[in-house]
Amino acid sequence: MGRTILVVGAGKSTSYLLDYLLKKSSAEQLKLTIGDLHPENIPSNISSHPNCKVVQLDIFDDSARRKLIEHCDIVVSMLPPRLHIKIAEDCIQYKKHLVTASYVSKEIEALHEEAKANGLVFMNEIGLDPGIDHMSAMEVIDRIRDRGGKLLLFESFTGGLVAPEHDTNLWSYKFTWNPRNVVVAGQGGAAKFIQEGTYKYIPYQKIFRRTELVDIDGYGTFEVYPNRDSLKYREAYGLQDALTLYRGTMRRIGFSKAWQMFVILGMTDDTYIVENSEGMSYREFVNLFLPYSPTDSVELKLRHYLKIDQDDIRWGKLLELNLFDDTKKIPLKNATPAKMLQYILEDSWTLKSDERDMIVMYHKFGYELEGVKKQLDANMVVLGENQTFTAMAKTVGLPVAMATLQILNKNITTPGVQIPIGKEVYQPILKELKSYGITFNEYQVPYLGYNPDSIGN
Amino acid sequence: MGRTILVVGAGKSTSYLLDYLLKKSSAEQLKLTIGDLHPENIPSNISSHPNCKVVQLDIFDDSARRKLIEHCDIVVSMLPPRLHIKIAEDCIQYKKHLVTASYVSKEIEALHEEAKANGLVFMNEIGLDPGIDHMSAMEVIDRIRDRGGKLLLFESFTGGLVAPEHDTNLWSYKFTWNPRNVVVAGQGGAAKFIQEGTYKYIPYQKIFRRTELVDIDGYGTFEVYPNRDSLKYREAYGLQDALTLYRGTMRRIGFSKAWQMFVILGMTDDTYIVENSEGMSYREFVNLFLPYSPTDSVELKLRHYLKIDQDDIRWGKLLELNLFDDTKKIPLKNATPAKMLQYILEDSWTLKSDERDMIVMYHKFGYELEGVKKQLDANMVVLGENQTFTAMAKTVGLPVAMATLQILNKNITTPGVQIPIGKEVYQPILKELKSYGITFNEYQVPYLGYNPDSIGN
Repeated sequence: MGRTILVVGAGKSTSYLLDYLLKKSSAEQLKLTIGDLHPENIPSNISSHPNCKVVQLDIFDDSARRKLIEHCDIVVSMLPPRLHIKIAEDCIQYKKHLVTASYVSKEIEALHEEAKANGLVFMNEIGLDPGIDHMSAMEVIDRIRDRGGKLLLFESFTGGLVAPEHDTNLWSYKFTWNPRNVVVAGQGGAAKFIQEGTYKYIPYQKIFRRTELVDIDGYGTFEVYPNRDSLKYREAYGLQDALTLYRGTMRRIGFSKAWQMFVILGMTDDTYIVENSEGMSYREFVNLFLPYSPTDSVELKLRHYLKIDQDDIRWGKLLELNLFDDTKKIPLKNATPAKMLQYILEDSWTLKSDERDMIVMYHKFGYELEGVKKQLDANMVVLGENQTFTAMAKTVGLPVAMATLQILNKNITTPGVQIPIGKEVYQPILKELKSYGITFNEYQVPYLGYNPDSIGN
Repeated sequence: MGRTILVVGAGKSTSYLLDYLLKKSSAEQLKLTIGDLHPENIPSNISSHPNCKVVQLDIFDDSARRKLIEHCDIVVSMLPPRLHIKIAEDCIQYKKHLVTASYVSKEIEALHEEAKANGLVFMNEIGLDPGIDHMSAMEVIDRIRDRGGKLLLFESFTGGLVAPEHDTNLWSYKFTWNPRNVVVAGQGGAAKFIQEGTYKYIPYQKIFRRTELVDIDGYGTFEVYPNRDSLKYREAYGLQDALTLYRGTMRRIGFSKAWQMFVILGMTDDTYIVENSEGMSYREFVNLFLPYSPTDSVELKLRHYLKIDQDDIRWGKLLELNLFDDTKKIPLKNATPAKMLQYILEDSWTLKSDERDMIVMYHKFGYELEGVKKQLDANMVVLGENQTFTAMAKTVGLPVAMATLQILNKNITTPGVQIPIGKEVYQPILKELKSYGITFNEYQVPYLGYNPDSIGN
């Protein structure tokens, strides 16, 4: 068997992934083929590497795509999630392993038996979140269980933020990943989780008001708002008996309370087109959501509508985004409120070329060991190096690259559609991630359960 | 041509409809056939009437349904809206006129050319709302235009409420129609309207906080929350140039502010199933939407979550519904929050056998005549007689019955899929409705446009 790795889709997030594989290519005798629609965007230090071949690939060109897949030994798909299925079907046909950082879709899940029968590893969700969250959580959960402990509580939070020294706006937020995901976050159905054995449901209109606070040594306080489905991995993690399961997204404190203004105004709605959106000023955009008045200002109408005093920090946050500017225009045709808001936010929240991002992750494990309730908190902070070597690219790309090599080297062999929750996967990868500075700090803390004093509201 | 009217579906709302047609049956030489799944529920004074024939009909039995339609001269469908299309297709095949009180669906609209080519009148939206609202509005709009006036503003509100003497709870509300429609009202997309030439959008989370107040002589103050699409009839009414178009639903003052609690809590969500809904107490239901606490009461958690003082009237409204009762149980299996809330509300808001309903409608017409801005307000109040002869059944059923007879008598002849906006339709029917006490009072008032003083917020 050869040693050719095909990476399909070489967007901005693949810097660490490609770098890792090429650095190992001589020692591991790897050949790397990159298939991308715009190969001209791939940095020359990568494309000119002797062990690297770059091919222009339109993913919808079936014969070109299949030819590439046929002639490699393992495929890494970094395409948008909905496109993985094309690659996966070819992987079945040509009997190739597959690695992605995306959630297992129903279409991919349906290939489990076929992949298994062919001895193929289809490893998914092996980026950051999902990815490092699975591995780091299962490592602790297995450790607690191996000592005879029983899990009572599991909470897991991740956030893509800006590095502390570039945390320079009132929101403590800049876009470090897909802005659209931030704007529509929390939509699509009530958030569902379980606290101390009681199911809890939060509608979109309250998600950003049900935050919990956590501290990270040296980095201060963060807040967490709930993800849509905290029960998703209950079975996979073997936590059917845990009383509390809660997954969330981390932000700097105060973000969610301010974001709630956009939710309540209706600015995050992506389901309808605003009349005459093209050329609308930021101020006119705001006024779409406020009562008409021939005399009152947009400013006062908004303050009254949201019950905000003039010295509320949230008011400053709105001003900082130039929301009341009537000279700044939105150039988008037939846009939804969400797209218009995204445009306005990108105007303020885009990272400057010298600014760095930061990834934070926080787990809480509550458990009972020899009749005593205990709690272990674990957290991770990863800082980006620059705009290419971001913390996001690092934490997504390195686990993907490592898993790819481990599969090629037959250290990861369990066939079928997988996520990285087994020891076979997480042990070598977590160990190797440590050498790249991706480590968790652990703290034994008193078991809090869900004590109201520990809940920010 | 014969004089046989087929009424399909004889539910509770058809009392006035059937009564009207049977009372006219001798003078007008009408034969009435009622096709219903449960004919045993039809009162004997109707079923035993010499000009009435009652047939057991399963609407999904194609041959039985077609046989009935083939042998009548006009069909009135009082079925749930989604079932009209079956009847309508048969009406095309057997060349029969059709009358319904429902909104024109896309499927029905698609039959326009065929109905027209066959000289068939397919009259829809001829109940109360839609129905009397169309007719009464167009009567005034045409009158203003005939005098050379130009419409600037049109607002139209309708409400199904409880009669003043039976307005005995804190909500000033009881179910007088389909409770489900009340629970999910406002969902399915942002409300859209236009005020003084400016488009306005209101998300679900603010619909019940953007109310407007109106007074009706002798009946006090009502509030209005916006309907989903106020621009729906802009073309049909010829109001392309009007600066303000706003349609809404009327409630007694204070209802919406209290209802907003359910919205914010997430209790009106109909998109997911609550775990273990069967046998859940009212109190447990409330707690689903509140943060977990080992010590704090559901009451205090809710008051804090919604920022309600203990002496807020909204608090009293929640207590009145027994929401914190842990002995009252919801017997529904696999129920959504909306279905569970509906159950709790029906427990309190069901009309007693001696209680009567009330229909209110309010139109505002702003216009310019000879350079002067003017405003005409028109409103209607209809009180029910009892639980069978309700105001709802009267205002829905009578226009349907009258239109049916007018079509049969060839006074309404415009073929195709119609709504009652032409003089041919509204003139005779509004006139006849007056003799049944369904009348509008008109008030010439100063033109307010959208002055903030006139907007309740």
